[in-house]
Amino acid sequence: MKYFVGVDLGGTNVKIGILDSEYNILTEESIKTESKRGPEDTFTRIWNKIQELFTKISVDISELEGIGFGIPGPVVNKSIVKIAANFSWGNDFNAKELFERISGKTVIVENDVRAIALGENLFGASKGYKNSIILPIGTGIAAGMIINGELISGNDGAAGEIGHISVDLNGYKCGCGLTGCLELFTSAKGIVREGIKVLKQEKKGILYETFKDDFEKLEAFHIFLEARKGDEVAEIIVDNFCNKLAYGIGVLINLVNPEIIVIAGGLAKSSDLIIAGVKKHLPKYALNMSIDIPIVKSELLDSAGVKGAASLIINKK
Amino acid sequence: MKYFVGVDLGGTNVKIGILDSEYNILTEESIKTESKRGPEDTFTRIWNKIQELFTKISVDISELEGIGFGIPGPVVNKSIVKIAANFSWGNDFNAKELFERISGKTVIVENDVRAIALGENLFGASKGYKNSIILPIGTGIAAGMIINGELISGNDGAAGEIGHISVDLNGYKCGCGLTGCLELFTSAKGIVREGIKVLKQEKKGILYETFKDDFEKLEAFHIFLEARKGDEVAEIIVDNFCNKLAYGIGVLINLVNPEIIVIAGGLAKSSDLIIAGVKKHLPKYALNMSIDIPIVKSELLDSAGVKGAASLIINKK
Repeated sequence: MKYFVGVDLGGTNVKIGILDSEYNILTEESIKTESKRGPEDTFTRIWNKIQELFTKISVDISELEGIGFGIPGPVVNKSIVKIAANFSWGNDFNAKELFERISGKTVIVENDVRAIALGENLFGASKGYKNSIILPIGTGIAAGMIINGELISGNDGAAGEIGHISVDLNGYKCGCGLTGCLELFTSAKGIVREGIKVLKQEKKGILYETFKDDFEKLEAFHIFLEARKGDEVAEIIVDNFCNKLAYGIGVLINLVNPEIIVIAGGLAKSSDLIIAGVKKHLPKYALNMSIDIPIVKSELLDSAGVKGAASLIINKK
Repeated sequence: MKYFVGVDLGGTNVKIGILDSEYNILTEESIKTESKRGPEDTFTRIWNKIQELFTKISVDISELEGIGFGIPGPVVNKSIVKIAANFSWGNDFNAKELFERISGKTVIVENDVRAIALGENLFGASKGYKNSIILPIGTGIAAGMIINGELISGNDGAAGEIGHISVDLNGYKCGCGLTGCLELFTSAKGIVREGIKVLKQEKKGILYETFKDDFEKLEAFHIFLEARKGDEVAEIIVDNFCNKLAYGIGVLINLVNPEIIVIAGGLAKSSDLIIAGVKKHLPKYALNMSIDIPIVKSELLDSAGVKGAASLIINKK
């Protein structure tokens, strides 16, 4: 029996899972990243947790094939995080080298979105497709692109940054330094901010009545929930979100011409509404020959991070 | 000695060139496409011209390794033109099969922009780069993308259509059916139309004085010529053009993260002005880590079509 570990390394939490040869998650646990304690400290705690999980499932650690890491930020050579923006580990941080030294195991590191794209392609919604794009939508949005069966990393490991194409040149400043980035609209935070603007204007509907005294409490899921129930103002907010998202998807289609697009990430729970809205607006943005492209929901969903990271090892050539 | 033929098949003219093993064009001629006479007729005339050119340079046709075709429109499997929009040959036209039957030689067919990308990558400005984008700018604009050393065709052969991302949703209708496409601004025709708007507003400068009685006579090269000489209004028109082009290039950079971008096509003659203008505006659109990307002029220039087509055969694996 072969065992694989997937590590989904976030700025706050690290999700660690053990998978068997059938790609089932046997066990999974989270620890705090606490990156301020340094990479050696965080990585040692991850390795300790992996060993602990193997003990828990009564499998000898010698049966571990390798460890895949999904890490936010540009990753090159399946090893180096060029800009570790979510951590305090500086730039050009060689995550592979460090974890191989600590664990003595094979380690493959990839950008988290690309890891998810690979996972979804190996055993999820885009299984069997040679040209697929995964769009995780949550705190941000980025595209994991597989073209001719190969993951696209780009020259500096920074390919797929659809969240930072500008869709409103007179709009808000984005954290990345650019203006009016797509991500400011098509993310969990973005739909809330844009939604509040609509609510303050419309001054009606269930969302307005519920949150008018404290808009800070409004979250993306409230908006999708009420849109699903047919609240008119919530529907407008979702429609605006889908219109912007359709623009981004149109750009991806016109440039990359994929076979399938998979909606993933925190907002994938509402992907039925999102997909219907995107399909409505897509004919404005995508070349006519491509507007019938399948746009589907992630199958890996909440386990996408861990399964995607593990797939780096499972897919190892 | 090996000989290769490159055929640059356009809607009006067909350029045919013979190359030697050092990729020099030994001889080159054009014939009319006259696609209305049917593909069999056009292809037979192309084959007759190839044989004639071999006779002219006193080389036996048996020394011809193969023929590469660059054809506008989506091409799949290096054979089939999915939509032969520039010809009257219907859809799913198998150009490879027909020309192999007529000539008895090996034939490889590719989208013309992708053929140019390959040519420039084999013996031009992007030689040696694994991740490069060629942007021919002329009657339209499209991107020929090479990623991880592979030409990107997309699922329906329609990848690289940067000309049809919308940059002005309230703008003109494009021939493709979409609205405000980049190509309506960043093409030879686009800079003239936008330029006339500026001239009618500014009512001054050498272009206004020269063309005010007949704006129909204004061409792109007039604008670049006067901008180069320092005419203020011409400079504004070029700057607007470069601003829009920088947006498109920013999208390409953020999505594909290439190592180098090559400006090709009819407007490449003015690429020094174009590149300077794009670099000025790029920081508004491209992620900061990538704004120092080299943007250079095509080296193949007017021979890009024929050399690109021939490179399909030279590069054959």
